[in-house]
Amino acid sequence: MQVIEKPQLEFWFEFGSNYSYLSVMRIEAAAREHQVDIVWKPFLLGPIFKELGWESAPFVQQKEKGAYVWRDMERQAAKYGLPFRRPSTFPRVAVLPMRVAVHGAGEPWIGAFCREVMLQNFFHDIDVNREDNVRRALERAHADPDAVLAAATGEENKLRLRRQTEEARRRGIFGAPTFFAGDEMFWGNDRLEDALEWAAGRRAHA
Amino acid sequence: MQVIEKPQLEFWFEFGSNYSYLSVMRIEAAAREHQVDIVWKPFLLGPIFKELGWESAPFVQQKEKGAYVWRDMERQAAKYGLPFRRPSTFPRVAVLPMRVAVHGAGEPWIGAFCREVMLQNFFHDIDVNREDNVRRALERAHADPDAVLAAATGEENKLRLRRQTEEARRRGIFGAPTFFAGDEMFWGNDRLEDALEWAAGRRAHA
Repeated sequence: MQVIEKPQLEFWFEFGSNYSYLSVMRIEAAAREHQVDIVWKPFLLGPIFKELGWESAPFVQQKEKGAYVWRDMERQAAKYGLPFRRPSTFPRVAVLPMRVAVHGAGEPWIGAFCREVMLQNFFHDIDVNREDNVRRALERAHADPDAVLAAATGEENKLRLRRQTEEARRRGIFGAPTFFAGDEMFWGNDRLEDALEWAAGRRAHA
Repeated sequence: MQVIEKPQLEFWFEFGSNYSYLSVMRIEAAAREHQVDIVWKPFLLGPIFKELGWESAPFVQQKEKGAYVWRDMERQAAKYGLPFRRPSTFPRVAVLPMRVAVHGAGEPWIGAFCREVMLQNFFHDIDVNREDNVRRALERAHADPDAVLAAATGEENKLRLRRQTEEARRRGIFGAPTFFAGDEMFWGNDRLEDALEWAAGRRAHA
């Protein structure tokens, strides 16, 4: 028996991030097409922005850019055929579902769970940090909410999310989504396809 | 005789801007493909950044993002088949060639001239603001250097560049390249194709 290993792409994302929404919704289908395995790497953007000396996402602090980003999101979502509604709260705190995602990163339900949380935030416009909403997302992803929530809110797993956020900082991540193919970093939903091609070894390396 | 008017896309750019480099090199071929006419709109980024409260391009001021951007440029240039060398001076002052571009925006040589200036900056790594270099770019674009430089450096034309920069600010431009299809604004080289499709009316409007 031979085990064929597919190339991997690390996917660093945060449920509060609007451009992460587009990538979370697209990445599994795109990765299948490129025959690449996704390694899910949730991390907290808040502490990263704080360490970089920013209060929040750069565009939140800058009126012109902020107005543009929401129009861009409408157009991009339409382009990809994704539902979208501008959240009434932005950026939303998402620590609880992030803890679940860190815990479930290697589970078969991770992709479906992440898409459910993202739809809650960027389409249904509800509080993704509330336990009942996280529970519903887990149910829809065919995970066991009780078992998963118990493990996700344990001290060990809380520490894992903190450590993963520190790792993001160490590796020079300054926004989300970010993709790593080995040491090669790609930033932004606009680079998802480039990152997958790089991981798959199909792009002539610059 | 019937004059068929093609749809138009405004192209706001600055010779000092690295992502404008990618769009300047690509836009004429892409516009032909989409059967869209380009309206060349050079403007000065410096005063815009200053009014937004930034010293320079956001990524110049932020180490992590800065390191990323140059790697991204190498990969993007390779993807589009464009030559690229990181400029030893960045961002370069480009007031003289910008004045020429404002003056020549409606001329048949505008595209070729802009590509020459951009190659000087982002491949040959030379001072694009020096008159001899501007002169060489005009020659290669088959324009008349003496006549063009005389007109470009006249008071009236200097004022046109200032006014165009003020217009950029009024319309909410915060970076380059920026494209306008009517009132619809698209920011960044990554949106060039979307902007052309929008202008051509081929994209379902969100």
